[in-house]
Amino acid sequence: MRVLHHYPLSPSSRLIRLYLSEKKIDFVTKLEVPWERNETYLKLNPSGDVPTLIDEDNTILCGANVIIEYFEELENNLSLIPGKVYEKSEVRRLIDWFERKFYHDVTFPLLNNRIIKRFVGEKNPSSEIIRGALQNLKIHLPYLEWLTENRKWVAGNEFSAADLAAASQLSVIDFMNDLNWFDYGEARAWYAKIKSRPSFRQLLSDEVEGISPPVHYNNLDF
Amino acid sequence: MRVLHHYPLSPSSRLIRLYLSEKKIDFVTKLEVPWERNETYLKLNPSGDVPTLIDEDNTILCGANVIIEYFEELENNLSLIPGKVYEKSEVRRLIDWFERKFYHDVTFPLLNNRIIKRFVGEKNPSSEIIRGALQNLKIHLPYLEWLTENRKWVAGNEFSAADLAAASQLSVIDFMNDLNWFDYGEARAWYAKIKSRPSFRQLLSDEVEGISPPVHYNNLDF
Repeated sequence: MRVLHHYPLSPSSRLIRLYLSEKKIDFVTKLEVPWERNETYLKLNPSGDVPTLIDEDNTILCGANVIIEYFEELENNLSLIPGKVYEKSEVRRLIDWFERKFYHDVTFPLLNNRIIKRFVGEKNPSSEIIRGALQNLKIHLPYLEWLTENRKWVAGNEFSAADLAAASQLSVIDFMNDLNWFDYGEARAWYAKIKSRPSFRQLLSDEVEGISPPVHYNNLDF
Repeated sequence: MRVLHHYPLSPSSRLIRLYLSEKKIDFVTKLEVPWERNETYLKLNPSGDVPTLIDEDNTILCGANVIIEYFEELENNLSLIPGKVYEKSEVRRLIDWFERKFYHDVTFPLLNNRIIKRFVGEKNPSSEIIRGALQNLKIHLPYLEWLTENRKWVAGNEFSAADLAAASQLSVIDFMNDLNWFDYGEARAWYAKIKSRPSFRQLLSDEVEGISPPVHYNNLDF
């Protein structure tokens, strides 16, 4: 059986759990805590980041991008980078945007200050960094609103891995109770659609030691 | 003619200049200074990052990953993500590793403190951050040494975009005179091979306002 090394609140891990479920590719999960720098895990994935997937033939696939491109090439039944070559570029652009830009500006600073610092016991959370990340969220959500207002799905007419990448980031922010939809009605309606997909259920029951999500987190009528 | 919006010391921009030259795809360059947040440019690429390529049919391609996957699909004459599906995964893994991990740990903090801060005139360079980045370089170079010792090219038997991604990061560090090969003979020999390729010549004549690279920078017998 395929084994996905993941951390529940890593957005890239969530992206791959959603992606594999949508493609109906079976896997079991193994918890990996990235900041513990587990030596055995570092041999699988020298970057130390999650996720890593060990395929049935023992092929080691490191990182969300590698895993997605691998299965897009192998399993053509349901493409999650769909369309012509320029439409695929738009899917990949938005995966990058959420996985790099949005994660760097919003998700990581919140995650680091609200959750990771509790576990590593290193420093106090920085309220300045949290404020900055929430400010960035208010800049980035209008872009998601624009995308969902003008398109059926985030990257165009087809449901794609870009929707999963976006929803993965937002779900982690929502777990920390930092997601406020303000006036973003289209983005909110889009998120409600994603949240009600069967693939999303596994994320809604995630537990993190000592930390509870807000009540609305696993409510489909949030 | 294709237009590549780039910044000379952005490793992702260098990766694409090398990539297009290796594939014999013609392009002209347009200078984009990422921290100036040019409004016209932000309409092309909402992330504000470089590179962005405008193809001949006006398709807009944002970011190194998107550009590479686009041309890998369109131009099959010379593949720079070569091999079977698992070999391609190794190329993609290493592109990610250099573009994300190595850039985050080494290239960006050096670039930000040695170059960008001069132009934005914001804060003094942090010698602590520079020391940390150089320390990270001493951790990451042995990995490159291991790769080049055990393989013909960085990702395996074939020359690939992973070699270009690695060389792009190193060339920016070398421009800042922060590259010391210590005892890394195999990595150094690999870098000398890449540096002597015709595609690399354009990088060696790059000029950045007011900043000169060290004498050995454009020397093929460094």
